[in-house]
Amino acid sequence: MAKNITSPEKDFSRWYLDVIREAELSDSAPVRGCMVIRPYGYSIWEIMKDDLDRRFKETGHSNAYFPLLIPESFLKKEAEHVEGFSPELAIVTHAGGKRLEEPLVVRPTSETIINHMFSKWINSYRDLPMLLNQWANVVRWELRPRPFLRTTEFLWQEGHTAHATEKDAREETMRMLEVYTDFMHNMAAIPVISGRKTEKEKFAGAENTYTIEAMMNNGWALQGGTSHYLGTNFAKAFDTLYLDSNNERHLVHQTSWGVTTRLVGAVIMVHGDEHGLKLPPKLAPIQVVIVPIARKDDEKNAVLEAANRIADEMKEIGIRVKVDDRDGMSPGFKFNHWEVRGVPLRLEIGPRDLAEGHVMASPRNRPGREGKFTIPMEGIAATVKNTLVTIQDEMLAAAVEFRNSHTYDVETYDEFKKLLPGQPGFYRVWWDGSSKDEIKIQEETKASVRCLPLEQRPGTGTCFLTGRETSTTAIIARAY
Amino acid sequence: MAKNITSPEKDFSRWYLDVIREAELSDSAPVRGCMVIRPYGYSIWEIMKDDLDRRFKETGHSNAYFPLLIPESFLKKEAEHVEGFSPELAIVTHAGGKRLEEPLVVRPTSETIINHMFSKWINSYRDLPMLLNQWANVVRWELRPRPFLRTTEFLWQEGHTAHATEKDAREETMRMLEVYTDFMHNMAAIPVISGRKTEKEKFAGAENTYTIEAMMNNGWALQGGTSHYLGTNFAKAFDTLYLDSNNERHLVHQTSWGVTTRLVGAVIMVHGDEHGLKLPPKLAPIQVVIVPIARKDDEKNAVLEAANRIADEMKEIGIRVKVDDRDGMSPGFKFNHWEVRGVPLRLEIGPRDLAEGHVMASPRNRPGREGKFTIPMEGIAATVKNTLVTIQDEMLAAAVEFRNSHTYDVETYDEFKKLLPGQPGFYRVWWDGSSKDEIKIQEETKASVRCLPLEQRPGTGTCFLTGRETSTTAIIARAY
Repeated sequence: MAKNITSPEKDFSRWYLDVIREAELSDSAPVRGCMVIRPYGYSIWEIMKDDLDRRFKETGHSNAYFPLLIPESFLKKEAEHVEGFSPELAIVTHAGGKRLEEPLVVRPTSETIINHMFSKWINSYRDLPMLLNQWANVVRWELRPRPFLRTTEFLWQEGHTAHATEKDAREETMRMLEVYTDFMHNMAAIPVISGRKTEKEKFAGAENTYTIEAMMNNGWALQGGTSHYLGTNFAKAFDTLYLDSNNERHLVHQTSWGVTTRLVGAVIMVHGDEHGLKLPPKLAPIQVVIVPIARKDDEKNAVLEAANRIADEMKEIGIRVKVDDRDGMSPGFKFNHWEVRGVPLRLEIGPRDLAEGHVMASPRNRPGREGKFTIPMEGIAATVKNTLVTIQDEMLAAAVEFRNSHTYDVETYDEFKKLLPGQPGFYRVWWDGSSKDEIKIQEETKASVRCLPLEQRPGTGTCFLTGRETSTTAIIARAY
Repeated sequence: MAKNITSPEKDFSRWYLDVIREAELSDSAPVRGCMVIRPYGYSIWEIMKDDLDRRFKETGHSNAYFPLLIPESFLKKEAEHVEGFSPELAIVTHAGGKRLEEPLVVRPTSETIINHMFSKWINSYRDLPMLLNQWANVVRWELRPRPFLRTTEFLWQEGHTAHATEKDAREETMRMLEVYTDFMHNMAAIPVISGRKTEKEKFAGAENTYTIEAMMNNGWALQGGTSHYLGTNFAKAFDTLYLDSNNERHLVHQTSWGVTTRLVGAVIMVHGDEHGLKLPPKLAPIQVVIVPIARKDDEKNAVLEAANRIADEMKEIGIRVKVDDRDGMSPGFKFNHWEVRGVPLRLEIGPRDLAEGHVMASPRNRPGREGKFTIPMEGIAATVKNTLVTIQDEMLAAAVEFRNSHTYDVETYDEFKKLLPGQPGFYRVWWDGSSKDEIKIQEETKASVRCLPLEQRPGTGTCFLTGRETSTTAIIARAY
């Protein structure tokens, strides 16, 4: 176990904060609930961003930028929307040395300002679909802040689209949920359950909210991203209409979808361990660190030269590699330094390795001596590339295995209440409850209905709470 | 001349707004002084951003993210800084449904919050230099807004660095000025004059501000970017100290530097013409547009097939190309559509071209029939690549030529006052004036001292205003 890091079994919350501090991912800011994203943490977000941005563009979306400050009256145009967001708003009342006539809201999300523009830009069916995305900061006043997971200001992308028909908009909603799902599996090595949110949990102003739910290492759920079918709710509020080919006017059907910097928190909590952060290779800013080990001066040069040579070979095929050639630090210090930071693969190279024509490899996901193996210098870049693929696959497999072994079927609420405290995880239940029932569960167990999975159990069963016959299953869990 | 676009000779201000509207670069937002950056405008910014980001990383900088909201008291810690920014601040007084104990400022720039964090992160000389950059939005209340040039909210990057010595920090200041200069020349095809700002014009809180000044097509100057040597001003205010190798404490020496979305405005005003936007190929989201021209159905397929085939060849070598295969629009409509949007090269392909094995090329920087030439299908991708290089070079050459032919040497203030109104441009003068003198010039002529160029005229001369002997020259011009 790394020093300065609490055991996750002992205190998961403290472990999380310890990892963030020791890996230099973020720091707290002077304003309550805000955080500073430090370079190493930000570089993980940059990799996520680049990959997601490519996926959005491949699915036909363009980026744009809408203003940070929104007239307060805009939020009031959609009744559910303002009710949902009012308690979290930050308000600018003074600017340029004067009191403003109308207060401005620091955007908590951009549906309203974007609909204001859409109503101007969209005239005919030829303007549809309009497929936009924005990378931006948003502010939602946070009373129980937690770095990356819940912060007053956070970074995110928000997709906003307008379509001619409900069918088109619903397809878009599911397409983007699938983009998120695929990103989580293939980039973040995190399996997710896709499902629909209940009425109680859906986005303020949406017809339906879809979510991807991931399981953290303590058995709690984390909402990884959401995709909303907004119907015509905002179109009605902002008169976003289009002329069809028969010159008849219709409201557009809309979607919005987003993921945030909380994904960095998900990566920490799904993959991290008692040694610190553990990054899947595809998200690692540094995928391979090479530590040259030599005591004598004449050995140092040869070892360092070999380290730099193999690093260059790796760079040439696109591997993100770093040679830790810092002077005056022991190999052990360096090992720990990169282990805490979750670098997927460490290579050690000393005079004997050099003589024998190999390096010693230590994958981060197989800590200790047992995980070590040698890689021949000959063709090392290709071997390392394959090793990174293996590590990525193993990390996904481990997360799937953990999730599956912490997913439970329960038949009754009593059973659930008895099991949950000692055995946190995803509870699959037959579900026919109301929003009131959800509040009851939350008050009594602190758990919530995470989603109604898209992949439902076949047939029907008895709702674990109400006893009514139902064809719907739900996932219930403690959540961040 | 494109319809809906005012002639730039007739009314340059209106021409600018017309081009922005017709090319769909931005739109005005409901909050005064704010703008929406539309997808096409944003994609130009994205290309700038990617290129600059690569340059920052190559010079050793990492990205990070600091909070949007800054305690009001932070700004007051550096006296000149608060005096400079106070009139432009937007203030959050309420959040989470309550009045805040201390108002929060929406960042106008981040020196204060970053120094707060630097004072925590920097302990020893081993932590130096600290080389950070942030891509972010900032808010400065704007009374005379103009899209891209002066907006209440704008996007920018702000570099912030801390160094052990003044020498290191001054070197960094000049290094980043050089990065900007090179970006402007080689990417934006805009020549700039690098120089130092006068005391009156320097950044609030800096020891020295360096600038790159570009000449717009109406002879006015635009400040393209600035690089500040901050000395120890912020370090003193925030106790940003480090221990040297002898265990003695010193203040760090700092820099900050930034460019903003106003660079998009510079590109419009340097290269644009009566037909609309004109983009240098390196900044163009679409570098080549192919317009297939065929009336009969049997010809259409063959022509479109050829258009797609050569587009694929170009994509393969990294050219950003689009085939405009829209139905029901005339070639003339399409030509105008892409001309207004400044696409550097248009290729037309019809049945006769196909039979003759070539396409007709129309470079945006040589409008009309005279500019047209044919490109053989054989090896077309490579030829187009070379053509784009030529267009880029020609656009830079044209901007240099325009700048040089609108740069004037004057010996007396009377001469300057007489010439400036009818002959806007850069006026090179011997300069030994004070801040008061600068105010006098500004009040009487609306011109300002843009910079004291790094490349000074050799020898000495007589200050054009005070008549005092001096070795300093200045550039004076009307400016945005």
